[in-house]
Amino acid sequence: MSVGRKIGTIHGVGLGPGDPELMSVRADRLVRGAAHVAFFRKAGRAGRARAIVEGMLRADASEIAMEYPVTTEIPLDDPAYAACLSEFYEHVAARLRDIALAGEDVVVLCEGDPFFYGSFMHLYTRLKDDVPVTVVPAITGMSAAWTATGIPVTWGDDVLTVLLGTMPEAELARRMGDSDAIVVMKVGRNLPKVRAALETAGKLDRAWLVECASMDDETAVPLVEAGNRAAPYFSIVIVHGQGRRP
Amino acid sequence: MSVGRKIGTIHGVGLGPGDPELMSVRADRLVRGAAHVAFFRKAGRAGRARAIVEGMLRADASEIAMEYPVTTEIPLDDPAYAACLSEFYEHVAARLRDIALAGEDVVVLCEGDPFFYGSFMHLYTRLKDDVPVTVVPAITGMSAAWTATGIPVTWGDDVLTVLLGTMPEAELARRMGDSDAIVVMKVGRNLPKVRAALETAGKLDRAWLVECASMDDETAVPLVEAGNRAAPYFSIVIVHGQGRRP
Repeated sequence: MSVGRKIGTIHGVGLGPGDPELMSVRADRLVRGAAHVAFFRKAGRAGRARAIVEGMLRADASEIAMEYPVTTEIPLDDPAYAACLSEFYEHVAARLRDIALAGEDVVVLCEGDPFFYGSFMHLYTRLKDDVPVTVVPAITGMSAAWTATGIPVTWGDDVLTVLLGTMPEAELARRMGDSDAIVVMKVGRNLPKVRAALETAGKLDRAWLVECASMDDETAVPLVEAGNRAAPYFSIVIVHGQGRRP
Repeated sequence: MSVGRKIGTIHGVGLGPGDPELMSVRADRLVRGAAHVAFFRKAGRAGRARAIVEGMLRADASEIAMEYPVTTEIPLDDPAYAACLSEFYEHVAARLRDIALAGEDVVVLCEGDPFFYGSFMHLYTRLKDDVPVTVVPAITGMSAAWTATGIPVTWGDDVLTVLLGTMPEAELARRMGDSDAIVVMKVGRNLPKVRAALETAGKLDRAWLVECASMDDETAVPLVEAGNRAAPYFSIVIVHGQGRRP
């Protein structure tokens, strides 16, 4: 980098759970002012992060759709899966790095909070030593989910455990039994397994299923009333703590 | 309630971790428009929630300072402690209920996220069946804390456990040993105990201490470099997960 040359900044901007009004004031300002806006999406889809900011971008903003490679035919634990994703992240990181080195800022749209199970982290680690990168934290999907239930999630000294629906059932059940409050992310097609683990842990009757938290089609119901329907990937299961409440 | 009489709404508005720009667009709008603004504070203090919105309130806003009773001389597990706090919450809930029943809205300023270890929950449970109450989720202090470390907190299928520095050391150590990523809230004067528990769990060298996350005096340092200083009550300890990262 030659002395005096301006280098752009890459902003990983958390957009929160989906409702544009739940974006932070800083995120709102950065998104509306951005000349370059990048976002992940599945091939052929509009992209969930991009949908949140619909109507907010500058008319002349350049949009960079970072399309995940199709990986459904490769098992998660196959080294080929990691290699395929790694190549993808290297490729899009290089593209953003080039824009920053040319002196322009880039806003990367991130669902939820960028450092909490986010895809942006894979760009962050590849870019932070080369160009300035900032991260704007955001309201998590789980905050929107427990708010949607209308019941506070943690009281007093309640322990909260965040689990993933992708984990083995026995481990889910063990950890559910050992926590006061529980959040299960990435429920989706793992819902029957999550339900069985909650039953083993004796907490099924206290669990709630929240879909599309903070969005127009938000639903929050006790899990035992949810039936055996398939839940969207981004649905969240909540078990509220029962701690000290004067 | 007589038919046709307007009843006000009580808004529990999460302000986030402290930086006013990290308030949500909705929180910003509600705070700036509020005729009645209520907030908790310790007697004789300005109040942390009130400080976040300094300069944002309407000139004619009425301010309701809800001052915690002095309880430092009563042990947490003494029934007198719960009774004292309960009487306090009943009293301030009645005051807010009266304003709502008189047809006026009230914005209750909440540090962090209202349903996540917040004092507002104690008003919420006392008010929600009598008058309309809404809750605006917010960026948690822990999101600001892990962002301040510059390291993503959860990857892939990492389990995150949220613990309280007030818990017994042996239980802290056991749970720290059983989790991928860890957040310890309410550290403050419990810092030596938290440090000892991390050492027992073999994770002291990976822990960070974050003070005043997102505020002007934010600091984030590896815990082993923090020395034996006393940490502010709202300091947070973070251990980052080490999960899958293609």
